[in-house]
Amino acid sequence: MVIRVTVWGENVHEQINKVVATVYPRTMHVTIADALNLDPDVRAGTATLQDPEHGLTAERLAATDVLIWWGHKVHGEVDDKIVERVVEAVHGGMGMIFLHSAHFSKPFKRLMGTPCNLSWREAGERERLWVTSRNHPIAAGLPDHFEIDMEEMYGEPFGIPEPLETVFISWFQGGEVFRSGVTYKRGAGNVFYFRPGHETYPTYHDANVQRVILNGVKWAHNPAPRIAHPSAALNRPVTATLEPIVERGPRLHHDGQAGYR
Amino acid sequence: MVIRVTVWGENVHEQINKVVATVYPRTMHVTIADALNLDPDVRAGTATLQDPEHGLTAERLAATDVLIWWGHKVHGEVDDKIVERVVEAVHGGMGMIFLHSAHFSKPFKRLMGTPCNLSWREAGERERLWVTSRNHPIAAGLPDHFEIDMEEMYGEPFGIPEPLETVFISWFQGGEVFRSGVTYKRGAGNVFYFRPGHETYPTYHDANVQRVILNGVKWAHNPAPRIAHPSAALNRPVTATLEPIVERGPRLHHDGQAGYR
Amino acid sequence: MVIRVTVWGENVHEQINKVVATVYPRTMHVTIADALNLDPDVRAGTATLQDPEHGLTAERLAATDVLIWWGHKVHGEVDDKIVERVVEAVHGGMGMIFLHSAHFSKPFKRLMGTPCNLSWREAGERERLWVTSRNHPIAAGLPDHFEIDMEEMYGEPFGIPEPLETVFISWFQGGEVFRSGVTYKRGAGNVFYFRPGHETYPTYHDANVQRVILNGVKWAHNPAPRIAHPSAALNRPVTATLEPIVERGPRLHHDGQAGYR
Amino acid sequence: MVIRVTVWGENVHEQINKVVATVYPRTMHVTIADALNLDPDVRAGTATLQDPEHGLTAERLAATDVLIWWGHKVHGEVDDKIVERVVEAVHGGMGMIFLHSAHFSKPFKRLMGTPCNLSWREAGERERLWVTSRNHPIAAGLPDHFEIDMEEMYGEPFGIPEPLETVFISWFQGGEVFRSGVTYKRGAGNVFYFRPGHETYPTYHDANVQRVILNGVKWAHNPAPRIAHPSAALNRPVTATLEPIVERGPRLHHDGQAGYR
Repeated sequence: MVIRVTVWGENVHEQINKVVATVYPRTMHVTIADALNLDPDVRAGTATLQDPEHGLTAERLAATDVLIWWGHKVHGEVDDKIVERVVEAVHGGMGMIFLHSAHFSKPFKRLMGTPCNLSWREAGERERLWVTSRNHPIAAGLPDHFEIDMEEMYGEPFGIPEPLETVFISWFQGGEVFRSGVTYKRGAGNVFYFRPGHETYPTYHDANVQRVILNGVKWAHNPAPRIAHPSAALNRPVTATLEPIVERGPRLHHDGQAGYR
Repeated sequence: MVIRVTVWGENVHEQINKVVATVYPRTMHVTIADALNLDPDVRAGTATLQDPEHGLTAERLAATDVLIWWGHKVHGEVDDKIVERVVEAVHGGMGMIFLHSAHFSKPFKRLMGTPCNLSWREAGERERLWVTSRNHPIAAGLPDHFEIDMEEMYGEPFGIPEPLETVFISWFQGGEVFRSGVTYKRGAGNVFYFRPGHETYPTYHDANVQRVILNGVKWAHNPAPRIAHPSAALNRPVTATLEPIVERGPRLHHDGQAGYR
Repeated sequence: MVIRVTVWGENVHEQINKVVATVYPRTMHVTIADALNLDPDVRAGTATLQDPEHGLTAERLAATDVLIWWGHKVHGEVDDKIVERVVEAVHGGMGMIFLHSAHFSKPFKRLMGTPCNLSWREAGERERLWVTSRNHPIAAGLPDHFEIDMEEMYGEPFGIPEPLETVFISWFQGGEVFRSGVTYKRGAGNVFYFRPGHETYPTYHDANVQRVILNGVKWAHNPAPRIAHPSAALNRPVTATLEPIVERGPRLHHDGQAGYR
Repeated sequence: MVIRVTVWGENVHEQINKVVATVYPRTMHVTIADALNLDPDVRAGTATLQDPEHGLTAERLAATDVLIWWGHKVHGEVDDKIVERVVEAVHGGMGMIFLHSAHFSKPFKRLMGTPCNLSWREAGERERLWVTSRNHPIAAGLPDHFEIDMEEMYGEPFGIPEPLETVFISWFQGGEVFRSGVTYKRGAGNVFYFRPGHETYPTYHDANVQRVILNGVKWAHNPAPRIAHPSAALNRPVTATLEPIVERGPRLHHDGQAGYR
């Protein structure tokens, strides 16, 4: 079964910042998609902020098994309606991976319910990621640690909920640590946050980083059919209970009436 | 140390529905606050949807250690700005308890990041709550199970994130089960959801229910000073690192510039 | 890739109790293995208490991807050395599924670290299992609830650690509830506990139950190579650090000496 | 309410190693107890391996609210019967704190069910602990990070179950990271593991370390009465069900007979 991936890129710094354009001449999202497409079980396309509906129409999301999100400079320009559409797709079972500065993206904050803040420093320092959950599928094929020579520092406390599992913790040259790989389930959808990827460094050309993203795609993918109305609140009427009961007391709703929400 | 509690009530059905007004002549929120005030370590007041700023000004939240929320009919009328203010107070360390139909309230959905949906039935059936975490402080002084003679049914699947701890699971006469007491941490704030409390039944007059809410208040209360800016993202400049490093590579931000968000 | 499963059965009641022998003429473990073998991706064999080394030699465990355990009457007769061998295999990455009364088996208690106790009643009552984690792979293809007409009751509080995920919660006719499907990771191994399966009832002939066990096998299976020494504590000598450091202060161990344990 | 603490020390290196005896002339366990006794709400005593029954009689454990454990050189000399007694006390509600090399102590491995292994290096390097759960009671009064000038390195992967909450993560000068403060619940008992404390360094004289241990004691303490038989499996007979049921089918046990275990 082929996993259909959409890599969403904000696509701003690639267009206006010479350093970024030099590091990623094909843009970050295309670089990530290209690496994924080397795997015969994955078929990755891209979408960007500048596309109509940010490239995330209902049809596109319905045809996306795993959505990858990279954004940084213009989180605020993402339309709230599209954010809700993405969140609902996750609730219905779409997998989603957030990369690096997407910690402050609207859909990540919306799915976490927490500040998602951290401390940071741009100094091109060394990052070393340690695997904290042995044999976790997201760490498949990796050594117990790997390094990225130059990266932005993200430091704890990281304002996230306690993860389902912590897969990577980073060491930084300047003295900080960070939970760099964390998993969640939101509704029926699997969510993975992965820290590396500052746009002025060649992180997404790194083989270990590419492998984590590929592993993350396979982990986040759920072959079950998407839940059609993931927020529906089903009334189970007294006339059709699983066990026999006799109705008692007053009601607010008459038969067949929708609940408040 | 006295714990300062604010019980927030939507205060609609008490005013317009005769059944509810009869069961709760002093309103639900006042009934809950009255029960809490029997404990000398608690000082509970109330606030309602109809108050200016829904009674939840910045000053009021700053003076609230634990906020209790009951809403049902008009979730949509709660001002989004007040919702964000409440959520930020939780992130800063305020405790919060959501009761019954508050599963669909804006602040609960905002803090969970999930659909928070469930199945339901109004039939005045019997609910039995089982303690699933022995000696949990929220279950202090309770037997291993207790009953509520007439309640609305809420059934699984309950669209919440995996809880930090599951404290109660309910059995319903009509054949359903429900995770009725679940805990979370969001930012620096403790969050507790407790299921019972349909407005047409005398649930908040029940001694066991009152005890759970009192226990919940004590559990959710955190005596640490509120975090002033719980969403701030601190820059740790290269000129003041904890370990000596030499800056390398290009930067997006100059010294002292705020990060994107 | 074929998943190699070993179904371990205590194999006592099938031999001495006429009721059990009638319900499971081929024994419970063979019944479970037969059902699994209908899936072309699974190859299931069996082992029993009465086999030399309980059928769980080092070679057998090395060739087992997922071990399923059913025991009840004679938990105490399982050799502690075999228990440690099984536990170490789980730590190294073998998946493991515990069924029903295996909640009190030595390897389950050993892996959980908790009492694993519960309340119980043999009355042939109705059990209804509710899916609490939508689209969880262990619930793939199942409706949101299913019933078993006659089962033993297991009731909360269930003396287990807070699960990684709660997949099923059971409703019982007599008024109890139970967390019937719970997942854990122990070392590199995935562990799943599934409640149904009292030996005097035909539970393992039930299509939904068989599907859960098959799903559980696929969920618990980890294709990563087994970790050879899952308890090893690696010394990282000062002569070969990842970052340059200068040794200071006194030592307890000289270079190359093993740590205490 | 005064919290009764017992600090258990292996008490070997203090007696035979001159460096350790110089750093801790009153032994490590007495040093830790002395620091705790500065708090008027705590009354801490000590017990050692060399005491009869290792100082952990049933009476002593019954009078201990929180047990602190430090061991290293002779884990294997701790009597398995005493280990089970300690574990049962935790299951019944006693709080327990494991320090440093107690990661390989028998009771910790018994409570975790995992290898509890790690990598290590004795080089007197700098450790910096970061708070990862803001306002967690165990981090009360601490800055967002603090340093220990000379410590043994412990590195990931740390062979523990996914914690209830991760409170501290350590950065090490030589390039490793470690989850240095993690919480669990086992039965009715709260368990906290805290990393620092190699015996050749003056770690337990450090004010921040002392504060964490004091905070840990207050967090782990549960004022609820100890559960008398935390492993009991209660039979709920069909003659006394909470809901009316009619017994069906065959039974293995007659009325009043204990279950298998």
